[in-house]
Amino acid sequence: MALLLDQQFAPLSDTKEIATKTFLESVSHLPPFFDCLGSKVFAPIKSDINGNITKIKAVYDSDPVKYETLQQILIIEKSSYGSEWPKVGATLALMWLKRGLRFIQILLQSLADGERDEDNPNLIRVNITKAYDQALKRYHGWIVQKVFKAALFAAPCRSDFLKALSKDQEVAEEDCLAKVRQFLINFTATVDAIYEMYSTMNAELDYLV
Amino acid sequence: MALLLDQQFAPLSDTKEIATKTFLESVSHLPPFFDCLGSKVFAPIKSDINGNITKIKAVYDSDPVKYETLQQILIIEKSSYGSEWPKVGATLALMWLKRGLRFIQILLQSLADGERDEDNPNLIRVNITKAYDQALKRYHGWIVQKVFKAALFAAPCRSDFLKALSKDQEVAEEDCLAKVRQFLINFTATVDAIYEMYSTMNAELDYLV
Ligand SMILES: CCCCCCCCCCCCC/C=C/[C@@H](O)[C@H](CO[C@@H]1O[C@H](CO)[C@H](O)[C@H](OS(=O)(=O)O)[C@H]1O)NC(=O)CCCCCCCCCCC
Ligand SMILES: CCCCCCCCCCCCC/C=C/[C@@H](O)[C@H](CO[C@@H]1O[C@H](CO)[C@H](O)[C@H](OS(=O)(=O)O)[C@H]1O)NC(=O)CCCCCCCCCCC
Repeated sequence: MALLLDQQFAPLSDTKEIATKTFLESVSHLPPFFDCLGSKVFAPIKSDINGNITKIKAVYDSDPVKYETLQQILIIEKSSYGSEWPKVGATLALMWLKRGLRFIQILLQSLADGERDEDNPNLIRVNITKAYDQALKRYHGWIVQKVFKAALFAAPCRSDFLKALSKDQEVAEEDCLAKVRQFLINFTATVDAIYEMYSTMNAELDYLV
Repeated sequence: MALLLDQQFAPLSDTKEIATKTFLESVSHLPPFFDCLGSKVFAPIKSDINGNITKIKAVYDSDPVKYETLQQILIIEKSSYGSEWPKVGATLALMWLKRGLRFIQILLQSLADGERDEDNPNLIRVNITKAYDQALKRYHGWIVQKVFKAALFAAPCRSDFLKALSKDQEVAEEDCLAKVRQFLINFTATVDAIYEMYSTMNAELDYLV
């Protein structure tokens, strides 16, 4: 579980403000997560998420003081973009990024909770499908949903996935899952806080791709 | 048809050598072709092809004299990469790029030849499927083939596709197709020459993705 645990997310402050710089650092270690899925079929997803991160980083780098927190980014972009907002800028990039993060979070949580398809205990399709249904499906038109269903067959089996998460070290399954649970604490709190911010700021959109 | 015809490929010389610089210039106008397909579902394809072009260009730019023709690239890479070759470098990038070019060529040729699904005369699925079956299918494992089948539903109808090729100008269908036929002359000759080169150089691979 080195892969993810090397980069725990920072604990959330009382104000739930998220420092952009720290967030970008932590999140930049996540795209390799999609390599753990083992197939090049997932490359377009990785690159979509990388694109989100690059876009937020470019805004941050343009003025690190002004954009110190994710909240500040939304507030400033809201006032500068007018009616284009929120389907624009780092606000849009983070809107999609958080869905990818939610996908990862639900998938890991489902594995940590021991949810399984009893008929296929070594497959993680049931966990991936749960994550997809809750985090992404409603934003995808039927064609992308069909593409997802096809891509699902490229998912690795449970033991290979856990091994990949552990950077191919031989780690007992329970140890790996214990580390997943540890990772999920700050990660889930961060993702929740971003969702809350989008809801509070009325920045969430539900158009389909 | 402005889109493609603005950038006709150069006629082939007697030696069938292809100047890298001219080739890269012509080919850089093709990725927008995938925008004509009208859906963001095709973005990963566009970016795969863009990646191929970038990789070949980087090799060319590193020494424009040494890599003056596509043939020289293959010959030099063959001698410098040893047993890694041909699954490496610009040789690999051009191997895949030519398949995308062949896909485009067969699709356009099929439209120019008036091939249609008589039950759905305004769909181009039959033309896309023909191009896919001949240019790409054999290099795709069953999962990517399934993804293709799902993505096919995002293809535009015939009239929208021809309109997009004409850069949204109102052009009579026959005029547009006449220009497609004109474009195909040098384009097909170029793609054929690249395939011939891969065959002569024994540079073709048939592994699956
Ligand atoms: C030869 C045959 C080939 C056929 C063609 C194949 C085509 C396949 C198409 C697959 C789609 C790939 C996934 C990408 C989907 C993306 O379309 C969406 C929206 O993407 C957002 O769009 C915005 C504008 O609306 C901005 O551009 C955002 O960009 S911005 O930064 O510029 O603002 C961008 O992220 N992202 C998403 O849905 C997010 C996806 C996260 C995925 C999470 C994991 C899922 C894991 C599944 C595991 C089984
Ligand atoms: C949320 C749900 C999301 C689920 C996830 C969705 C995943 C969808 C996966 C779709 C695949 C996208 C197409 C890309 C496929 C690529 O995998 C292949 C091989 O790609 C090559 O691979 C090499 C190494 O083996 C090098 O990296 C090459 O790169 S290198 O430059 O580094 O050497 C690279 O081009 N290219 C291809 O098959 C070429 C494709 C050309 C396409 C032509 C048109 C088809 C049009 C179809 C119209 C209907």
